[in-house]
Amino acid sequence: MKKIINHPDAFVDETLEGILLAHPDKLKAVDGNLRAMARTCATKGKAGVITGGGSGHLPTFLGYVGKGMLDACAVGNVFASPSAQVMLKCIKAADQGAGVICLYGNYGGDRMNFEMASELADMEDIKVEHIVVSDDIASAPPENADGRRGVAGLFFAYKIAGAAADLMMSLSEVSEVTRRALDNIRSIGVAVSPCILPQVGFPTFSIGADELEVGMGIHGEPGIETRRMMKADEIAEMMLEKLTAEIHLDKGDRASILVNGLGATPREELYIVYRKAAKILIEKGVEIIDPEIGEFATSMEMAGVSLSLLKLNDEELLRLYKHPASTPFYVKEASR
Amino acid sequence: MKKIINHPDAFVDETLEGILLAHPDKLKAVDGNLRAMARTCATKGKAGVITGGGSGHLPTFLGYVGKGMLDACAVGNVFASPSAQVMLKCIKAADQGAGVICLYGNYGGDRMNFEMASELADMEDIKVEHIVVSDDIASAPPENADGRRGVAGLFFAYKIAGAAADLMMSLSEVSEVTRRALDNIRSIGVAVSPCILPQVGFPTFSIGADELEVGMGIHGEPGIETRRMMKADEIAEMMLEKLTAEIHLDKGDRASILVNGLGATPREELYIVYRKAAKILIEKGVEIIDPEIGEFATSMEMAGVSLSLLKLNDEELLRLYKHPASTPFYVKEASR
Repeated sequence: MKKIINHPDAFVDETLEGILLAHPDKLKAVDGNLRAMARTCATKGKAGVITGGGSGHLPTFLGYVGKGMLDACAVGNVFASPSAQVMLKCIKAADQGAGVICLYGNYGGDRMNFEMASELADMEDIKVEHIVVSDDIASAPPENADGRRGVAGLFFAYKIAGAAADLMMSLSEVSEVTRRALDNIRSIGVAVSPCILPQVGFPTFSIGADELEVGMGIHGEPGIETRRMMKADEIAEMMLEKLTAEIHLDKGDRASILVNGLGATPREELYIVYRKAAKILIEKGVEIIDPEIGEFATSMEMAGVSLSLLKLNDEELLRLYKHPASTPFYVKEASR
Repeated sequence: MKKIINHPDAFVDETLEGILLAHPDKLKAVDGNLRAMARTCATKGKAGVITGGGSGHLPTFLGYVGKGMLDACAVGNVFASPSAQVMLKCIKAADQGAGVICLYGNYGGDRMNFEMASELADMEDIKVEHIVVSDDIASAPPENADGRRGVAGLFFAYKIAGAAADLMMSLSEVSEVTRRALDNIRSIGVAVSPCILPQVGFPTFSIGADELEVGMGIHGEPGIETRRMMKADEIAEMMLEKLTAEIHLDKGDRASILVNGLGATPREELYIVYRKAAKILIEKGVEIIDPEIGEFATSMEMAGVSLSLLKLNDEELLRLYKHPASTPFYVKEASR
């Protein structure tokens, strides 16, 4: 095995220990439990925004806990849901009297456990709302959009919800604007090489030597089709075409783009993909707002790229997207 | 080939086009030449600090052009030096009347071309100083330290020099403090899988299935030894031991650590390495200042990790390290 780890069973907790040692100014373990990480600073009366999910996707999910983004994150084992108990700890840590929004990707285990956690929170009189992110257009057709998985578009959702809460909007206002953002967020990705689970030690699926998987999920879920390897421009064009079939972008529209590397793909290649996507949008007359290019939602050492869109015609969404944020893995500077 | 590119010959320029399209507020191509990138803002009378080097190492070198860091960067082909002409463009763009420091890694081609460029600049009456970074302790023994390569420690050097220039220190003051920083910077890395040059399309060297290369360079230069695969803690301990043989760290000392991923290594694994290194230093009574964990100097999709130290007992170095910076690939927030 070529993983730089100690024992596979210690992978998650040792990662979390490292993160806590590196960022003690920003993060704390709730009740000393590494699986329940919260911001060090709290603001009385602020609506809480938390998330949770399996490990192996850094910076998602934990990396976005911090000012202007998330208040806490429940951490599960590799590609596995955190427990409801850990989620409850996060809800309680994030509650400042105004209630808490649980904002997470659409996966069975996460849904079930977050629902259980909110029932437990209810017994402690904490108001909890759920917002499930299902931005991956490759995982189900539009008529079954609720069945789609949550992928890199989670970043955009965290950004908007976190900014709204930071501006002291009420729980229902944060919830409303986040749902509005989700209507404007879509993602799709391609994978060109598999990932390796620490517990297994070798790839659990393969991608042909001259093939790519269109729409593969961040846990290696099957995509919509296997194609012969494509050029970067063709990949960018294909992904953008599928996204804009649902998020229409025309002259005068505004949007942000997120080009996300799945793990092993060099930053150079991500910028080559961005180049083509940006050119197509600029050609159309679309204004691109603060694009992000880098690793935002990974799948260990999987190679590949995903593209996410956030349409920003809405003035309020634009303002929230541009609001500053400061987390261990992402900093949004104040606009000058 | 599983690279997400168009044509290998277009790799560098398309990457640069993408970077320019994504960061037009921060970067501009000098005289329209993509290989000579400079900051959009200039401050009269400020000492210039520029760098240059081959492509394939993002965020190094270009990613650190911006406020509080570098003024310009000359970009070469993959793993190849930029031309003296491009370097001259960068020197001229960075000169605000106070002269320019060329701060770059110790590689034959880069040295030769930067020397040629400074002769050309001399003819235009621009004062140029050279500072060559040779932080990689694995590339030559201490008695031949001048022969060492420059690797991830370049980041620390850029940070200190850029902050000093941003604070309007004179060329000789910036030069002096940067050399002082270099006395306190050392790096070493291990590689566990090779990288692929776009022009070649397959790995040009191999690393055995159960082996790692200690001290391999960021272009795949041979390391000091090939060892059987080690655990993360053993790797961290071994790297730190070699570094602290040269940069002594004892109780009460201060240092920053940079845990750098070479490309394909997941962020989780970098934090596992950081965890062990931090524990050893904390145990010793060393204060760790603003550690950085992520990808800072990569080698395409090589898997592996490097560790760099910057000893910060010196109050001036500490202040400069903590000075804010804003570049496309790195943001240093103002201390609160």
